Amino acid sequence: MQGMTTTEPLQVSSGPAPAWDDTFWTSRLSGRARSMTASAIREILKITQQPDVISFAGGLPAPELFPMDAVKAAFDSVMTHYGPAALQYSTTEGHPPLREWIARQSGIPARNVQIMTGSQQGLDLLGKVLISEGDVVLVESPTYLGALQSFQPYLPRYVQVPTDNEGIDVDALEAVLKATPAKLLYAVPNFQNPTGRTLSLERRQRLVELTRRHGVTVIEDDPYGKLRFTGSELPSLYQLALEQAGGDPDRVHVIYSSSFSKTLVPGLRDAWVQAATPVIQKLIQAKQGADLHTPTLNQMLVSELLEDTLPRQIEIVKKVYGERAQHMLSQIAEHFPKGADYTTPEGGMFLWVTLPEGLNTVTLLSEAVERKVAYVPGSPFFALGGGENTLRLSYSSAAPEQIERGIKALGETFQAALG
Amino acid sequence: MQGMTTTEPLQVSSGPAPAWDDTFWTSRLSGRARSMTASAIREILKITQQPDVISFAGGLPAPELFPMDAVKAAFDSVMTHYGPAALQYSTTEGHPPLREWIARQSGIPARNVQIMTGSQQGLDLLGKVLISEGDVVLVESPTYLGALQSFQPYLPRYVQVPTDNEGIDVDALEAVLKATPAKLLYAVPNFQNPTGRTLSLERRQRLVELTRRHGVTVIEDDPYGKLRFTGSELPSLYQLALEQAGGDPDRVHVIYSSSFSKTLVPGLRDAWVQAATPVIQKLIQAKQGADLHTPTLNQMLVSELLEDTLPRQIEIVKKVYGERAQHMLSQIAEHFPKGADYTTPEGGMFLWVTLPEGLNTVTLLSEAVERKVAYVPGSPFFALGGGENTLRLSYSSAAPEQIERGIKALGETFQAALG
Repeated sequence: MQGMTTTEPLQVSSGPAPAWDDTFWTSRLSGRARSMTASAIREILKITQQPDVISFAGGLPAPELFPMDAVKAAFDSVMTHYGPAALQYSTTEGHPPLREWIARQSGIPARNVQIMTGSQQGLDLLGKVLISEGDVVLVESPTYLGALQSFQPYLPRYVQVPTDNEGIDVDALEAVLKATPAKLLYAVPNFQNPTGRTLSLERRQRLVELTRRHGVTVIEDDPYGKLRFTGSELPSLYQLALEQAGGDPDRVHVIYSSSFSKTLVPGLRDAWVQAATPVIQKLIQAKQGADLHTPTLNQMLVSELLEDTLPRQIEIVKKVYGERAQHMLSQIAEHFPKGADYTTPEGGMFLWVTLPEGLNTVTLLSEAVERKVAYVPGSPFFALGGGENTLRLSYSSAAPEQIERGIKALGETFQAALG
Repeated sequence: MQGMTTTEPLQVSSGPAPAWDDTFWTSRLSGRARSMTASAIREILKITQQPDVISFAGGLPAPELFPMDAVKAAFDSVMTHYGPAALQYSTTEGHPPLREWIARQSGIPARNVQIMTGSQQGLDLLGKVLISEGDVVLVESPTYLGALQSFQPYLPRYVQVPTDNEGIDVDALEAVLKATPAKLLYAVPNFQNPTGRTLSLERRQRLVELTRRHGVTVIEDDPYGKLRFTGSELPSLYQLALEQAGGDPDRVHVIYSSSFSKTLVPGLRDAWVQAATPVIQKLIQAKQGADLHTPTLNQMLVSELLEDTLPRQIEIVKKVYGERAQHMLSQIAEHFPKGADYTTPEGGMFLWVTLPEGLNTVTLLSEAVERKVAYVPGSPFFALGGGENTLRLSYSSAAPEQIERGIKALGETFQAALG
């Protein structure tokens, strides 16, 4: 918006400017910037956004389920009730009614809750306040790619912990903890992105106990926990650790992150972190420098939707995603080659496919796109590489007919590759 | 939102938990977190938020001027036109019509514009992609406190450049550039926060030329540039550098940051950065990890307000802030002790007072609050300390009667301190 209203010719006071050097920026970026790379998913999504391609690649909530009328009513209510305060600066910690509601769900004080501009910000700021260069961060193998992207600028060393159908292998975790002075463990226990797997109750208990014993902080990322369409709800790692700490949220070594993106709508970017007070205090300072506060209007809108819309919305989304998952699983059973293994999610938005060894899902993607279907190759989800024969499929925003055509086309792609 | 629906008692698999160690978090925070401190302003604002205190402390835009009806109309239009897409995930770069509009104002392509969640995010991500630990960052003395807070986690070394009533002293800048291998210069050329001073045209030209010759990147922070209520608009550093680079935005060593917070409303958190493509590419990667994207709805709302509301709003805000500044200046002339020096802003929201040497505005603040008036002490705005006898006053959100009572009470406070 800067303007050029001066009418004089612009004169620079001395001599000609030095010739432009095209390496100027290369030498002026930070070391951390040079370590950052574009998200593989993001680049893939660009290729696959042709309108005639059926995409199981993105992790998009189903927009046809968004509670549009409730959001409109919430906007009217917020503007009437708060007036200009809805558009003014607000506190870094977050809109008090929103913090208080979140805190009540876990039986903790509001001071242990920090509102975030999407859970991606929670991961970024946790990385900022917890990770020093070279710190060992334990991650599931595979893990959520976005977390790797958030942590990467703080230059951790990753150690992968193996997983199976019940989530993190806790025996392997124990061995790693004994062998490695780890700073923290990042985990997605419910309907993990990318695998759709859920950590069993017994493993949750052991994970909490092991990490506590070894003094390792746990970041529990739980965007999908409320979207369980089959099986029984399990306690979060945070809840188990809180129980173990006698209910004192300041003696809990687990940090909990969640979001309204998957249960309400993602475009408002409203999320939160629950943690011990010393961590929250540092998150507040980090957030002051990062964006001052989450947009005021957006927090007020979500607050209006908590009592009626959110529980109704969770039921709607669970039902639809459950049907879509079931439909995709039945189509996979019918069309995928023998030797293709896949997960059976109990909730969330994703399932994970392991093709026979030797197939490469990165190179197969272009063949799939030729058949008008897209997925995300699995290898970017491995912090240290691997998983060339794996892929992630999202069923959340695919209609039944798209699932049928898309999975059939994928089956043909993989059959053809197997010869 | 994690639940506890299991009815079994929670059992942890082995032995009692180790006793809680209250130093747990101290030893688990990153080095950078330990370097972070709470904003002095923020802590002061808490003290002064008693409803009967007249506060010139905050930098709040006047809420009574917010275009409430236009925002309501924009919301209806966005929901009708975009439907669920207004609440869905969107691209990291930003809403295309918004980027394109911003780019047109400077005659550059949209690819050189990155939308940010408030200009605070622009500063954070620029720090992230530009500053390696120990890099020398040149700042005005005094400078914007929020920039120091954004850059601090990346552990720069600050070097202060002296300023006077025409802004940065460019002779001093040249001496610093010759003596110090600086990475970047951070500057607020228009109606600077905290001083309200404006960099003269001649100094802008020399600053651009000097930094370019020495290969030093400039971050030009310009949230207030459109709010000029007296004098003539000056070209931005960015515009001068673009001119010097023959109009090629990829050969400009100045990075420009601005915001809709001061011209429209701050609570939506919509801002942007203009820079050469290599910088924008890194900012996109950093923003993916920081919050994925600025809230979709908020960008669409601002886009609806650009053509009619924004220019009208700028005229309204300029007029009111100009009157308030003039009123505050006349009250200061009447009530402040001789020996108190102060700036005469040509725009923006702030003016800067220098009291006689020996007075300390931090200790005087409690006496001022007893007289029911508050300001921000100046010393936190100096990267390396100093300015104990300075203070910042904001006139943007004070009514005439508050200005009269508040400045009179401040005058009494300072007179009393001088004995």
